[in-house]
Amino acid sequence: MPSVDKLQKEVAGLLDGNIRSLSRLITLIESTPEILASIHPKIKDAEGKGHIIGITGPPGAGKSTLSSALATLIRESGRTVAILACDPSSPFTGGSVLGDRVRMQSHYTDPGVFIRSISNRGSGGGLSNSTYGITALLDAFGFDVILLETVGVGQTELDVMKTSDTVVVVIVPESGDSIQTMKAGLMEIADIFVVNKCDRVGADRMVRDVRSSLQLSDDYRGALPPIIKTKADSGDGISNLLHEIDTLHRDSVFSSDFDVKRSAMRLDILRSSALTEMEFVLDTILKRDNPENDPALVSLINEVELGQKDPITAAKALINMIKNK
Amino acid sequence: MPSVDKLQKEVAGLLDGNIRSLSRLITLIESTPEILASIHPKIKDAEGKGHIIGITGPPGAGKSTLSSALATLIRESGRTVAILACDPSSPFTGGSVLGDRVRMQSHYTDPGVFIRSISNRGSGGGLSNSTYGITALLDAFGFDVILLETVGVGQTELDVMKTSDTVVVVIVPESGDSIQTMKAGLMEIADIFVVNKCDRVGADRMVRDVRSSLQLSDDYRGALPPIIKTKADSGDGISNLLHEIDTLHRDSVFSSDFDVKRSAMRLDILRSSALTEMEFVLDTILKRDNPENDPALVSLINEVELGQKDPITAAKALINMIKNK
Repeated sequence: MPSVDKLQKEVAGLLDGNIRSLSRLITLIESTPEILASIHPKIKDAEGKGHIIGITGPPGAGKSTLSSALATLIRESGRTVAILACDPSSPFTGGSVLGDRVRMQSHYTDPGVFIRSISNRGSGGGLSNSTYGITALLDAFGFDVILLETVGVGQTELDVMKTSDTVVVVIVPESGDSIQTMKAGLMEIADIFVVNKCDRVGADRMVRDVRSSLQLSDDYRGALPPIIKTKADSGDGISNLLHEIDTLHRDSVFSSDFDVKRSAMRLDILRSSALTEMEFVLDTILKRDNPENDPALVSLINEVELGQKDPITAAKALINMIKNK
Repeated sequence: MPSVDKLQKEVAGLLDGNIRSLSRLITLIESTPEILASIHPKIKDAEGKGHIIGITGPPGAGKSTLSSALATLIRESGRTVAILACDPSSPFTGGSVLGDRVRMQSHYTDPGVFIRSISNRGSGGGLSNSTYGITALLDAFGFDVILLETVGVGQTELDVMKTSDTVVVVIVPESGDSIQTMKAGLMEIADIFVVNKCDRVGADRMVRDVRSSLQLSDDYRGALPPIIKTKADSGDGISNLLHEIDTLHRDSVFSSDFDVKRSAMRLDILRSSALTEMEFVLDTILKRDNPENDPALVSLINEVELGQKDPITAAKALINMIKNK
């Protein structure tokens, strides 16, 4: 934990456009998400101007190439862009992300593009907590667009996507299980669907499949989200995609949907962060060798273990013990 | 909620081998998992004799056909069997399960086979809570084997599998994403792998892929779980599978691993049930129109919404408010 003085100096640096201060603050939040408590009051007034675009989808859909192609076009439109790649798996399995980072070095010499990968160092909600903090830093620093990219479609990735203003779900023609996957939460969060690698066999069929799944879904009673075909490695369809993203965002800001969404996002992060904290409290209590556990709790746990008390009823008793502690 | 007298009568019926009492109690627990609190003390001494076998895997792997084939062989060995199919998706999308149930009517005239489907009527941990209660009923009723089957491999299904003594993970040669899927938790819970539809192209390759994934995994430093090829619709490989299941179970009971596993399972259900309960408490508090909310809480939520307080820090404050309530 850095000293308060040091932290204030870095925050002042960040607000002054110092990229090294930004980098150091990101590293701090990645390892200790709670540090946001000291930083947030200083940056909150600079926040809320950047457009946070989430990019998610199954592994191998080409999300990283797509981010890179989007970044190029965003730069051409005169805006600055930060790419934050989130990998919930351990650093040891993060090989492909590293490889993708190398490809992104096409932006390396452009100071208007900032690229950073973060992985899940903490437990449970750690990644979504630190992602929230880091996007807040990038936003306050002044990036016009923040691309938030995940490597897969697990629960953690979906949680990370909640930090975005606009969510782009990327699939490929051969994503056989993608319709199945979408049921698991992707469909509800998508503002735009992208069928990438659209030169491959089955691209049009995939577009139709997505459309009919969306039409059957209860979540879209009004307008369906756009479904856009791209070929990220050649850049085909990317300007069309960016146009849709910008249009949705402009409409959202214009109709003040933007503020409503941001408020909902903050409440959602409050909720998931509180749940993570509760999980931590629970696991501390369930640790057998916790010296603070009182005898009633120890005997409750023993009864459950031996099958003398059913775990569902015991859970309610446990909650009451925690509340009255 | 039935009267206490009525409930006691049904429980007495269940312990007396009355299948209608069993059915009615299952219906009660499915809609109101908490009712287990009144039932458990009466049935706990009859519990712990049945062998609970979990069967899970991606959609389309043939789990239902496999359960049916296993049930036939289990009956031939003189044992009774209950099949409990759990579908966490809504009843409206549960078409395939219904179809599979029809196929299972081959056991319809055999009183030694009991078949029941349950879906997720409640929220969050509802299905795993009611599954626990229902397997306890089936166990206390006296079924020798309880086959617990899920339709997919989401988090809910994994939670349901925790109720099992032996977990069988079923995949098919064309499960292209299966190795990927396994990373998401299947690998850690599998006691036995089945490559079903093993007459299809790629079956042997899938066996090798699973084996090498297992060998690379940190979870199996000792013996690898068996990988068995089956063709459930013709019955090929099923007796081999049942033999492995029975052998593992016998070894487990003999080495008292069984009791250790059951204790761990009960603690795990205590934990997940407590988490579900906490989530409920949290969501009640976060409801804006909850008249019991005090002003400090309301203003905390407002500050988060407006971006004046960061949600991570607010979450900690919220937990303290809940604790001190």
